[in-house]
Amino acid sequence: MSAAVATPVDFRVLQEKATRLRIDSVRATTEAGSGHPTSCASAAEIMSALFYSVMRYDPQNPGGPANDVFILSKGHAAPILYAAWAEAGAFPREKLLTLRKIDSIFEGHPTPSLPFVPVATGSLGQGLCVGVGLAVAVRQFEKTDQRIYVLMGDGESAEGSIWEAAQWATFHKLSNVCATIDINRLGQSQPTMLEWELKTYQARWEAFGWQALVVDGHDLAALIAAYETARRTTDRPTIVLARTVKGKGLVGIEGLEGWHGKALDKELAAKVLAPLEKQLTGADAQWKPHLPKVAETSAPKIDAAEAGSPPYAIGGKPLASRKGFGDGLAALAKVDPKIVVLDGDVENSTYTEDFQKIAPERFFEGYIAEQNIVGMAMGLAARGRTPVASTFACFLTRAYDFIRMATISKLNMKIVGTHAGISIGEDGPSQMGLEDLAMFCAEPGFTVLYPADATSAWQATALITAQSGLGYLRTSRPATPILYGPFERFAIGKCKVLRASDSDKALVVAAGVTVFEALSAYDQLFQQGIPIRVIDLFSVKPIDQEELINAARAVGGIVITVEDHYEHGGIGDAIAAALSQENVRITKLAVREVAHSGHAEELMEKFGISARWIVDAVKKATGAAVQS
Amino acid sequence: MSAAVATPVDFRVLQEKATRLRIDSVRATTEAGSGHPTSCASAAEIMSALFYSVMRYDPQNPGGPANDVFILSKGHAAPILYAAWAEAGAFPREKLLTLRKIDSIFEGHPTPSLPFVPVATGSLGQGLCVGVGLAVAVRQFEKTDQRIYVLMGDGESAEGSIWEAAQWATFHKLSNVCATIDINRLGQSQPTMLEWELKTYQARWEAFGWQALVVDGHDLAALIAAYETARRTTDRPTIVLARTVKGKGLVGIEGLEGWHGKALDKELAAKVLAPLEKQLTGADAQWKPHLPKVAETSAPKIDAAEAGSPPYAIGGKPLASRKGFGDGLAALAKVDPKIVVLDGDVENSTYTEDFQKIAPERFFEGYIAEQNIVGMAMGLAARGRTPVASTFACFLTRAYDFIRMATISKLNMKIVGTHAGISIGEDGPSQMGLEDLAMFCAEPGFTVLYPADATSAWQATALITAQSGLGYLRTSRPATPILYGPFERFAIGKCKVLRASDSDKALVVAAGVTVFEALSAYDQLFQQGIPIRVIDLFSVKPIDQEELINAARAVGGIVITVEDHYEHGGIGDAIAAALSQENVRITKLAVREVAHSGHAEELMEKFGISARWIVDAVKKATGAAVQS
Repeated sequence: MSAAVATPVDFRVLQEKATRLRIDSVRATTEAGSGHPTSCASAAEIMSALFYSVMRYDPQNPGGPANDVFILSKGHAAPILYAAWAEAGAFPREKLLTLRKIDSIFEGHPTPSLPFVPVATGSLGQGLCVGVGLAVAVRQFEKTDQRIYVLMGDGESAEGSIWEAAQWATFHKLSNVCATIDINRLGQSQPTMLEWELKTYQARWEAFGWQALVVDGHDLAALIAAYETARRTTDRPTIVLARTVKGKGLVGIEGLEGWHGKALDKELAAKVLAPLEKQLTGADAQWKPHLPKVAETSAPKIDAAEAGSPPYAIGGKPLASRKGFGDGLAALAKVDPKIVVLDGDVENSTYTEDFQKIAPERFFEGYIAEQNIVGMAMGLAARGRTPVASTFACFLTRAYDFIRMATISKLNMKIVGTHAGISIGEDGPSQMGLEDLAMFCAEPGFTVLYPADATSAWQATALITAQSGLGYLRTSRPATPILYGPFERFAIGKCKVLRASDSDKALVVAAGVTVFEALSAYDQLFQQGIPIRVIDLFSVKPIDQEELINAARAVGGIVITVEDHYEHGGIGDAIAAALSQENVRITKLAVREVAHSGHAEELMEKFGISARWIVDAVKKATGAAVQS
Repeated sequence: MSAAVATPVDFRVLQEKATRLRIDSVRATTEAGSGHPTSCASAAEIMSALFYSVMRYDPQNPGGPANDVFILSKGHAAPILYAAWAEAGAFPREKLLTLRKIDSIFEGHPTPSLPFVPVATGSLGQGLCVGVGLAVAVRQFEKTDQRIYVLMGDGESAEGSIWEAAQWATFHKLSNVCATIDINRLGQSQPTMLEWELKTYQARWEAFGWQALVVDGHDLAALIAAYETARRTTDRPTIVLARTVKGKGLVGIEGLEGWHGKALDKELAAKVLAPLEKQLTGADAQWKPHLPKVAETSAPKIDAAEAGSPPYAIGGKPLASRKGFGDGLAALAKVDPKIVVLDGDVENSTYTEDFQKIAPERFFEGYIAEQNIVGMAMGLAARGRTPVASTFACFLTRAYDFIRMATISKLNMKIVGTHAGISIGEDGPSQMGLEDLAMFCAEPGFTVLYPADATSAWQATALITAQSGLGYLRTSRPATPILYGPFERFAIGKCKVLRASDSDKALVVAAGVTVFEALSAYDQLFQQGIPIRVIDLFSVKPIDQEELINAARAVGGIVITVEDHYEHGGIGDAIAAALSQENVRITKLAVREVAHSGHAEELMEKFGISARWIVDAVKKATGAAVQS
């Protein structure tokens, strides 16, 4: 590395800071009695270079929108992240000693409770995907020259998600992303696959189109030069491959195996800290941050004009709920400029292509890489966009770990799964999302809507994007009748009672495609003198407990649930939970085995969720004679 | 490509076969009215080269263990896979016309209902991970020179999981894997990121250590030569990068966008088929398969000797259930040679290191790449091994799509999640598995065990590995008392009643760490004259419905569930489902929000699953005065 450095750098200051970061990392983890001091120590010079020379930010406003952004993808090195901000003056250093305590915001791994943490990290391999999302937001929407810095561990380089982000960043020439890998050779249990094969790392990143700079990660001049080279590179992202030593600077531990994730006891800490403290000279007393340029206030203005109403008439041409979503999203494109859409090469099936046509600059083709799609959405959400990420419901399982971390991050982002359930038909079980409700409903903070027709899907899209927070929308493949008129009002947490009388013998709660089966069952049962109440659940979470209780009581506690989802974790369980204090008998109709290819109607019959099964279940539950 | 081909190849035969495969793919999809004929057509020469020259297999025994193995990772090209086997003589060609019908085993995407399909495909990016597992099984345990062929699409190359498999295969020099990418340039909605940048593909695969051969994918001689080069290469795996044209050979469609996943209507099919049929000369009439060498029968002998009993005494030194799992697995290592173990660089936390020490040749370090770990386990399972894949429960979310496909494949494989729940403590929410029960219980066919102490974890490990099929074992981080003696008998589907009397006022069902909270609550309530029944659920799925009903009835229907899991999809919902026809009132104690760092006991108190909360819930439910 021989690149010229723009600003004169006082390396004594940076070395002093690196030493302080080591000291603070050891102190905090020893006080906590757990943590990863050796994973911090290997990164001390990298953190020092970034925080005290390279990055532009205001320590007095650590979450400020004009700051360069730093993501600690190797989240277990949290203590050095906290130390870096304390050292910059963001908060008093004493707070570092609250690490990992129940009443401290300085948790074992970073969470957005801290203003300088855009998204939670600690599940490895996610930071670069998030960084790519942040970089897109900054470049494309905020139009600033802010830079995104991501620090990864070498162990986490094994996660495939990193390569999903790498290829996408290259494809879009995201030169405002600069990642660093802290290549300290040691994983948790043993050396990594590549150990210190820096040339192999370099070949892989270069093949993926990145500028890959190999440096000694404890050489501050080399680090600074690399980051400067990165800043001057405008046609591609840069990765700094930093050869480091795990536990660097911690005497008696440096470079040794068997020290991952272990805090030093007080005696050992004292031994390790003494020589470090001796190195302190006060050289950094005059350090001052490189403040960012004041950001232009370019907050998008949301036009108060309505997006209009769903354009479908009751009883009109049958339409898939996924198309209602696509139409709704396209209508919203015009009124809410914060909405951005990401899709996994299925936009002509999910109908996000309707949005793409209207707002191509806010549509991102994620290709077949669902982890990176959700990771990018997390980054976009952290910058104040309202991302909507969509693909077939089944393929969202690919991104469950990212969805989990988005939950912990409490982001404002929306995920839409189309082609839910066996009703997709002939493509067969690999394409059927039958566990997506279990997956999303489990996550706290998620709103989960499951519309039955195109009108309610249109409205659900409007509701879920207007509400701040995490949202999941489940839609279906087959065309189904239009149930609701354009001016029908829907609300999060509210169901729709479709059939009711004073003499109802049972309550049937359905959602999505099974609503039509329930209505068909109603007709058959009505003919046979068995009136039933039919509810379209619509909002799975929050659930309309009040109306469900009313209805269950009105029918004497006989409840049948029917869903195009596996039996565990779907609407049947959600309804049972809502009625757990009621005197009810619940019969759950759901898909109970691995499904098969076939016509949608055949499959719903074969796997027990068609009108015929509802009729039988009602009769059995009410004691009427079953004729099937 | 100029490598010499070992056996004389009659290219007229292979071209004839390729034409037949195109014809059959069009016919079947047109008959079905859906499917992906253009994705088949681009692969016709690749399939012909592999099936009619390169691979050694017995068409009369398509699932035979001595055959070379073929994985169609681009599962949507299923019709050409089926056509290839029909053409080889495995079954009558007429059966191809049953494609996608409800009573046909020829589904829209391949499933193991077909003997020549080791695992279901159709979720892209999984085939290479599975292939790596197959290759390990063949090389390391069966010790044959059989080869594993994987055909991928170019669109699916964007999935990070492929690179996880690629790096692992290189690291282990798996030269018996030969993958092909059908680079037809077009994804579903638009061109792929790399289109026909063959050199970029090549650079990436070479950087990952593979022999990467670029060929014209419609040139049979070039394909045959490449596969022969691959066969002669013994130090690394090979990838054949085949430049192809989507819809190749289908006049009027070849190379066009907008034809992904569309069957031709009958009229268009007739137009497309006519010139293809004219090309047929009967040149392949004399084709004969390259039969495999007869495999040595080297089935592992399972020693009937017992693995012994858990070595822990009731009331002995507290131990984590994860350690009971590790000890149990190590004991089983000695008696069941089919067990193989995979871990994600956390074997010193999951305690699979205990197995590793005893049977290092059956332990596979998967590094931090959970998708590939589960994918490899799928491959190992498909070859008759009993894989046990373990990591922290939270990180299994990373592999949910693979778990979903393993479910569809109905494999014999086991997954173990350690560090479940908030009781892990200080590391914080990113390391807490709080949705794993929702995830695994949703999948049909999974047995889910959740032991409370080391003894039951040891026994659960024995039970779940002895039973054929899919199994999930959930274990915890903290040391807890030993509840059960070495000779206590456990069974899948059976719970343990820990406290019971004739005057019990409520039933408390717990599992894992909350069992100890329930026992503590029992003691407190007993002192206050409120006897309760306490059940250790142990087997979440199947659940002990009979005993739960007995117990619920005995206490008059007052049920409290308590779990270290999010509220949706865990044991509370499973118990509610088991009691859905009973007259019960269920109070569910579970984690209802994103958790935090802290001591385990503090967290259980803060998030509502400690003994104090159980006491309060019992009192509230039974109408007793609450003192908290």
